[in-house]
Amino acid sequence: MEQILQKIIDDNRQYTEYGNVATYIPELRKASKNDLGICVVDMDNNIYEAGNCGKKFTIQSVSKPITLALALMDNGKDKVFSKVGMEPSGDPFNSIMKLETSKPSIPYNPMINAGAIMITSMIKGKNNADKLNRMMNFFKNLSGNENLSINEEVYMSEKLTGDRNRAMAYFLRSEGVLTENVEDVLDLYFKQCSIEVTVRDLARIGVNLAYQGVDMLTGKRLMDEEVSKIVKTFMVTCGMYDASGEYAISVGIPSKSGVGGGIMGTVPSKMGIGVFGPSLDEKGNSIAGIKVMESISEKLNLSIF
Amino acid sequence: MEQILQKIIDDNRQYTEYGNVATYIPELRKASKNDLGICVVDMDNNIYEAGNCGKKFTIQSVSKPITLALALMDNGKDKVFSKVGMEPSGDPFNSIMKLETSKPSIPYNPMINAGAIMITSMIKGKNNADKLNRMMNFFKNLSGNENLSINEEVYMSEKLTGDRNRAMAYFLRSEGVLTENVEDVLDLYFKQCSIEVTVRDLARIGVNLAYQGVDMLTGKRLMDEEVSKIVKTFMVTCGMYDASGEYAISVGIPSKSGVGGGIMGTVPSKMGIGVFGPSLDEKGNSIAGIKVMESISEKLNLSIF
Amino acid sequence: MEQILQKIIDDNRQYTEYGNVATYIPELRKASKNDLGICVVDMDNNIYEAGNCGKKFTIQSVSKPITLALALMDNGKDKVFSKVGMEPSGDPFNSIMKLETSKPSIPYNPMINAGAIMITSMIKGKNNADKLNRMMNFFKNLSGNENLSINEEVYMSEKLTGDRNRAMAYFLRSEGVLTENVEDVLDLYFKQCSIEVTVRDLARIGVNLAYQGVDMLTGKRLMDEEVSKIVKTFMVTCGMYDASGEYAISVGIPSKSGVGGGIMGTVPSKMGIGVFGPSLDEKGNSIAGIKVMESISEKLNLSIF
Amino acid sequence: MEQILQKIIDDNRQYTEYGNVATYIPELRKASKNDLGICVVDMDNNIYEAGNCGKKFTIQSVSKPITLALALMDNGKDKVFSKVGMEPSGDPFNSIMKLETSKPSIPYNPMINAGAIMITSMIKGKNNADKLNRMMNFFKNLSGNENLSINEEVYMSEKLTGDRNRAMAYFLRSEGVLTENVEDVLDLYFKQCSIEVTVRDLARIGVNLAYQGVDMLTGKRLMDEEVSKIVKTFMVTCGMYDASGEYAISVGIPSKSGVGGGIMGTVPSKMGIGVFGPSLDEKGNSIAGIKVMESISEKLNLSIF
Repeated sequence: MEQILQKIIDDNRQYTEYGNVATYIPELRKASKNDLGICVVDMDNNIYEAGNCGKKFTIQSVSKPITLALALMDNGKDKVFSKVGMEPSGDPFNSIMKLETSKPSIPYNPMINAGAIMITSMIKGKNNADKLNRMMNFFKNLSGNENLSINEEVYMSEKLTGDRNRAMAYFLRSEGVLTENVEDVLDLYFKQCSIEVTVRDLARIGVNLAYQGVDMLTGKRLMDEEVSKIVKTFMVTCGMYDASGEYAISVGIPSKSGVGGGIMGTVPSKMGIGVFGPSLDEKGNSIAGIKVMESISEKLNLSIF
Repeated sequence: MEQILQKIIDDNRQYTEYGNVATYIPELRKASKNDLGICVVDMDNNIYEAGNCGKKFTIQSVSKPITLALALMDNGKDKVFSKVGMEPSGDPFNSIMKLETSKPSIPYNPMINAGAIMITSMIKGKNNADKLNRMMNFFKNLSGNENLSINEEVYMSEKLTGDRNRAMAYFLRSEGVLTENVEDVLDLYFKQCSIEVTVRDLARIGVNLAYQGVDMLTGKRLMDEEVSKIVKTFMVTCGMYDASGEYAISVGIPSKSGVGGGIMGTVPSKMGIGVFGPSLDEKGNSIAGIKVMESISEKLNLSIF
Repeated sequence: MEQILQKIIDDNRQYTEYGNVATYIPELRKASKNDLGICVVDMDNNIYEAGNCGKKFTIQSVSKPITLALALMDNGKDKVFSKVGMEPSGDPFNSIMKLETSKPSIPYNPMINAGAIMITSMIKGKNNADKLNRMMNFFKNLSGNENLSINEEVYMSEKLTGDRNRAMAYFLRSEGVLTENVEDVLDLYFKQCSIEVTVRDLARIGVNLAYQGVDMLTGKRLMDEEVSKIVKTFMVTCGMYDASGEYAISVGIPSKSGVGGGIMGTVPSKMGIGVFGPSLDEKGNSIAGIKVMESISEKLNLSIF
Repeated sequence: MEQILQKIIDDNRQYTEYGNVATYIPELRKASKNDLGICVVDMDNNIYEAGNCGKKFTIQSVSKPITLALALMDNGKDKVFSKVGMEPSGDPFNSIMKLETSKPSIPYNPMINAGAIMITSMIKGKNNADKLNRMMNFFKNLSGNENLSINEEVYMSEKLTGDRNRAMAYFLRSEGVLTENVEDVLDLYFKQCSIEVTVRDLARIGVNLAYQGVDMLTGKRLMDEEVSKIVKTFMVTCGMYDASGEYAISVGIPSKSGVGGGIMGTVPSKMGIGVFGPSLDEKGNSIAGIKVMESISEKLNLSIF
């Protein structure tokens, strides 16, 4: 398996030349454009890695399905989906238009920014510190990594430059959909996006989703089976921003990407996959990362379709 | 199995009270609102049926993935997807807006009307009669039903009232995307939508998709494996109009609905499903039909997620 | 006065270098880019001209306020404005989007194409020939030019390439707003756009609008005073496509432009102005023509604000 | 004249039954629905009043053309119109959509909220207190009322509930159009909207606009002639929210309305008009107020068209 992964990395390294590292959050500009790494964890907890797999990067939007799972367990399906829809939007992740044109004015799904902010606002806790603590513990349990922490520079950078997210949050508040304090919710959201991970962390989370929410290492159930199914469904229909449809065809693995360059894949009943390549296309997905996912899907016949 | 199906029909017949039969095509108003039927064909070609499974209805949008498969084989993936996109649109099936706002002005995907009309325009043939003949043969082969034919009343009714489809086709022509004669393309499209089927026809097509494009009955390959995968992917991301996301969560079976009341489901490597219930919700999907799909998915654990 | 006009033409001829003649109707490509002419007719029927004032060109959208006047007299204000709105749309003249998003689905105003097509459909007559005859007579009376006729090459060219207009007309029909036969209405509309005029014809129509609808030459009332006021109001709020707001600031004269290069201005109780310059900006307005209008407005202090 | 005004008030009082006082700012709910008053100031500084003309109300959007005039004098036309467009938008005053769809992402015009916020951000001053001071002096000079002041309850209410305005301001900041601190700009904007006026104050401002920016009382020039023309043009094309086109037809007087129930009219070279009627239609305009403006326009033949 490691040979296969190594070959996939070698074959696709060329694609790291294309695109650009994210610039809209100044801290993210510091990434090394040519990095490319992969980790696979299978159902027997075997770990296979290749490429720049030790590099840390911020989780960004890859966090969205995880906080969705937590919010679903905290609030139940009915409450969550009264505040956020279930449909792909066809628009970029930071689009605000459909909030104005749709009635009720709820975000189309939890994978676009407006929806993810709503989800973060629904995580339970006595106060923001408690909510953050619960969220971090959930990420730590799912990844089996007790040392997960927040990259403070990225967090501060997001907070300083997050005006588009503020626009969405205030719009949702003006419609009565978001009822919490905007800056509190965004502070938690920016921290969530700034959690630092490696491809192994993502692969570990992915394999636990593949195992329907039960932790491979401990046998402990970390999320309900239904919740794990919902999360994987969104990863297919909306996981790769407004390129999800094309990705479902070319890869066919439930996945979520982030502008930090990460991709988390989960192959039901088979494996979790983490990929990292910080150079992005116009829609915000890792160019070489998608190529790696295409290669592994084809070589190991992983498409769910 | 037939007992299970019978119970599913019995349990869900109550939902036929809700919604309304399609009215935008006058002929469709004649449907019997309380009809509900199901057919399952498994990989050993066993056929199980329950409810009003002998009723004929027009295929309508359920035809879209089939003509997509034919167009893909006629033209290749690259050419088809230069004319039609691969992304869910988030808009109703007859929406024209995104044609104006997106560059290039191609339909978002082949499951909305604008995209399906483009797909129909790409079916090869010496003339319209030849194209129709090739299309009908493809439907006949996939369903194993040599007697498939067009409901002339519905076809005439669609032709008379199809001005919204004309608007889309002329828009696509004004953008240079559609290059064929509009009335010729629409004539073929209206005929395609007016093919009369039963739930068994749909289940047969579904099982052949589940079997990656090989005909269960004859062992003959009817479509490339890759084409069958593409078709099933669109059935997940865009198969149930702008309710596809919710359906993927609650059912999780690649499916396509039509305003005639039909739903075709395909469970990879397992079975094909045909359902009929003509009373529709606001988005154009069979209300009781979706309930039936939810029941069977849950009882037989068919979700792909 | 003629010296003033001559100087205005001389000073602004340089701007004919910018932009391009209309290409979307193939016949219009034949115009001479550097032509620039003006004609002013005052309330005492004095005629002043300068530049290429003998050139003929097709009236195109400059016809829209005139057919609006006729439709208002044929149907009354209430009926007309139940089918077409009164608001600027903020969108390009051939935009279809707002037809989908607004309820009821009527065009925003009679100066965008969708609205103008609706207006043309409301002109009374036993048949299309009779409607055309009534329309031509109205244009002839207003311009005092018995010889006005249709440029057959432009008409055929528009008919061949008018798919965007067909898209709008079919959309309006699918919504039940347009009830006439689409090709009949468009045939009349394409003929209306293909009437050949000179700047003198436009100035003559303009001065009759300035005189509240009474013909300067004969003293005969050609349209109701209220109708003439309505027409002039639309010329301010929507007369220069989606550049009307800027033009109202820089020129301040009720005006209507067309992609043939014409601009018709009407200064209430003072004069009518016709300008011709076929090189257009991106919004479809004559670049040098607007400059000429700015100059004359400033020199003669003609802004209504 | 006062008899005419009294009759107009008497005839139109019935329309105060329709619509509702503004509710989106809680303080505005306290208005008396049946109030209706008018004041006319002519070019000889004669003052005529009728109805509930002593009532104070907050100026709200009627302030927009005034701060536009100040920003134009502070920054020049070129700079202002590089940040805010000149076109009617066709959308409601608090719409955010076009900010996303138009390139560059500047507000369509200074009369919708997004544009007015940009204008407020361009008023010069050492700090917010200084800017407010300059703004208040400008309003005081134009109205000839040294006692103008801010209604603190309304101001606090706007600040508490102004999340839609915050959404727009943060969106503009995320696009780099607004560069100031959002809460500072909005604080100034909310204060501007909360200035308390009577119909006489509005009529006084109106007559000074009618007199091309020269103060009737002192003969002092308060704004450049060109600025006064620009302001009046926007009052025609965008002064009555997305009902400006219809109002231009039925009234034809450059006017600006506010959700406090005020309407300010300016008849070039003739008079200023102030009207107050707090019950609004769906677009935010005073229902009885518009009727009063229609009556006075018709009786005194005041349409500029």
